[in-house]
Amino acid sequence: MQSSRYPSILLENAVNEFSRLPGIGRKTALRLALFMLKQDKEDVAQFSDTIKVLRNDIRYCNICYNISDFEVCEICSNPKRDTSLVCVVESIRDVMAIENTQQYFGIYHVLGGVISPMDGIGPDDLAIKPLIDRVENGEVKELIFALSATMEGDTTNFYVYRKISEYDIKVTTLARGVAVGDELEYADEVTLGRSLINRQPFENTL
Amino acid sequence: MQSSRYPSILLENAVNEFSRLPGIGRKTALRLALFMLKQDKEDVAQFSDTIKVLRNDIRYCNICYNISDFEVCEICSNPKRDTSLVCVVESIRDVMAIENTQQYFGIYHVLGGVISPMDGIGPDDLAIKPLIDRVENGEVKELIFALSATMEGDTTNFYVYRKISEYDIKVTTLARGVAVGDELEYADEVTLGRSLINRQPFENTL
Repeated sequence: MQSSRYPSILLENAVNEFSRLPGIGRKTALRLALFMLKQDKEDVAQFSDTIKVLRNDIRYCNICYNISDFEVCEICSNPKRDTSLVCVVESIRDVMAIENTQQYFGIYHVLGGVISPMDGIGPDDLAIKPLIDRVENGEVKELIFALSATMEGDTTNFYVYRKISEYDIKVTTLARGVAVGDELEYADEVTLGRSLINRQPFENTL
Repeated sequence: MQSSRYPSILLENAVNEFSRLPGIGRKTALRLALFMLKQDKEDVAQFSDTIKVLRNDIRYCNICYNISDFEVCEICSNPKRDTSLVCVVESIRDVMAIENTQQYFGIYHVLGGVISPMDGIGPDDLAIKPLIDRVENGEVKELIFALSATMEGDTTNFYVYRKISEYDIKVTTLARGVAVGDELEYADEVTLGRSLINRQPFENTL
């Protein structure tokens, strides 16, 4: 659909903006723009202002770089959390996913991505230096790598691992294996192989 | 995912706003909000302002009720268009779809929906009165119904048809039939039956 076919430049502009969002094509963008036209002016103003405020006023935790409304996030400032246990993740979505398990009582470090030369992302574009500072300060006893199981994730793990090798801390990584509820025949062979090598005492699963 | 799990109230507000959009669930809304956080402040401000301006400054054509940047839209004001031929559609998306065929040289009338008692939409909620006024003014020679082939669309067709029955104009409706490129065995029987009854001289298709 050519842009010249839109009956109004205002509509065309809105479609252009919506279609810059990830996963939103021009047809969906048009649907969203027309939806906006059917809403009350106050509702649209609130939508618009909320997005702008999010971007302008958002703050990040001084310790773990998670999104936060305060200088130190609720997780880092929670006295019940074990601050010597630090889980290294890519994004705040990973923090939310791990929090949802209700199985983790340490704190986090959000890198903001992984090293990816193809995308022009080097170590200096991520919060790696602050992580090393945290280790250097002696507050960390164990670092858990919880990055994506991709080449970029592994590269980032290895980069950080080398940087902190001089410090006497434990470094672990998430267990890889067949997912709970999965059937064996559908597991890929690398995962299946790794779950065989790292097999667990059966009593641990009871 | 409970709302209390969001690390920031600003983020939660943005997720709430995004998830009010049609077809956008809370997971996608979170993805969109985090995407916004990675954009430049200027880009987010432009996104936000464009949507607000769309809603506040949009205008509708005085004649056909299509979206327009002017009092009379580009289609209605085009001297090459046959203003005695009026195609009645539900929404501006239908106008765009018909324009894209490049087969139509009349003008339009955008009702803004169809009569749907279940959704509380009656004739007075639609631009039916202005359509009847157009017919009454004697400017229309043929009205083409191009509403959805649903019960609501048919009801609306019939309602308008009765209202204009006293005027001496031609009233037509879009041909229903097997879609171009479709295989016969997959066509539903109502469509196939209708396309048999309304069969065309073969010479017309050459």
